Amino acid sequence: MGKIADRLNELGLTLPAAPKPVAAYIPAVHYGNLLFVSGQLPLKDGQLLSTGKVGEVVSIEDAYAAARQCTLNALSVAQDVLGDLDRIDRIIRVGGFVQSANGFSDQPKVINGASELLGEIFGEKGRHARAAVGVNELPLNASVEVEFVIGVAD
Amino acid sequence: MGKIADRLNELGLTLPAAPKPVAAYIPAVHYGNLLFVSGQLPLKDGQLLSTGKVGEVVSIEDAYAAARQCTLNALSVAQDVLGDLDRIDRIIRVGGFVQSANGFSDQPKVINGASELLGEIFGEKGRHARAAVGVNELPLNASVEVEFVIGVAD
Amino acid sequence: MGKIADRLNELGLTLPAAPKPVAAYIPAVHYGNLLFVSGQLPLKDGQLLSTGKVGEVVSIEDAYAAARQCTLNALSVAQDVLGDLDRIDRIIRVGGFVQSANGFSDQPKVINGASELLGEIFGEKGRHARAAVGVNELPLNASVEVEFVIGVAD
Repeated sequence: MGKIADRLNELGLTLPAAPKPVAAYIPAVHYGNLLFVSGQLPLKDGQLLSTGKVGEVVSIEDAYAAARQCTLNALSVAQDVLGDLDRIDRIIRVGGFVQSANGFSDQPKVINGASELLGEIFGEKGRHARAAVGVNELPLNASVEVEFVIGVAD
Repeated sequence: MGKIADRLNELGLTLPAAPKPVAAYIPAVHYGNLLFVSGQLPLKDGQLLSTGKVGEVVSIEDAYAAARQCTLNALSVAQDVLGDLDRIDRIIRVGGFVQSANGFSDQPKVINGASELLGEIFGEKGRHARAAVGVNELPLNASVEVEFVIGVAD
Repeated sequence: MGKIADRLNELGLTLPAAPKPVAAYIPAVHYGNLLFVSGQLPLKDGQLLSTGKVGEVVSIEDAYAAARQCTLNALSVAQDVLGDLDRIDRIIRVGGFVQSANGFSDQPKVINGASELLGEIFGEKGRHARAAVGVNELPLNASVEVEFVIGVAD
């Protein structure tokens, strides 16, 4: 079994089935040594873990869990495309969008749900650049959407 | 004539003149085998096809048409920079921003205006990763803004 | 001294100490010939230059200055990672997020604070692709956040 697969086991994590895109695009594109993973929603077993605005109807804790789920979904997509997560050389960039109530400015604490999980799983290779912002609306009323740029070894 | 130029003809599509940026930047940067195209607004003959918030004053259908126009503008930019659209090896990533009324969460249906057109024109090479989100405001009050990362053959 | 360091001197600019990320990620990732710089806030001496919504409590002029500060912070990060700003081959992409009051659609004028500074410092190499959008909220209530993709010479 691969090293990252082992590490997921150690952490008690199981990758979900890779979610299908909700429209006319594909889950990820591998071009050169870069893998661009589409914006992931916090879908789990076909349901969104969290809907609505963070800071109003959704707590930071629940939104953190949602960002973590987006990341598991992205890794499932990466596994589908790459065949083996050990081919991941580096997590390069995380782009996090948080559906934010008026006055909510703790987007970094929410997107830490993605960043901290990547650190747990990938260690040094999981250390990434990031942009986290608030938005007023997201697809399917999801509370969080996260996209990824990943470096792939030759 | 190039293959993609032929395909545009078949589809009855004519590329507009490449829109000028609305500020101190350039329409696209070609670096290595990647072409980054600036966020495109739905300008047609110098006018925005669609302004205001989708789900309030703008229908999904009109916003879909706007996203399609952003994509035609981006291809016009790509043609200007690359000289020939046949040099496009892959559409890698589409980033779509939809000016969204409170409660509007059908951003994917809007940005499909970009994604479906890319599929029609480029076939397999047009299959891309995507992030689509809602925002409360966009430049010039445009309803949609779309940016692109494109893979270019050597 | 490097050419870009000279140019900063000529312009009377001093790079700040590179700001620490506000959460579980790192300031930039250098992968292949690309440097992805995390979303920068307009921090100066540990304080945000500008908070709140542009078009309401913040003027375009103040937000422009904030976008400029984000850019200085990004260059400080780049210097830390690359050792020498002369290794910057091209500014490829600027992604600008403006915390926008309802009805504010002059995001391009705000993000020009980043774009024009890059032109002043880097000349031709500073000409970049860009996406500028409005959002309803940003981390720490910052008025502006700007991220960067930079091309690095081998």
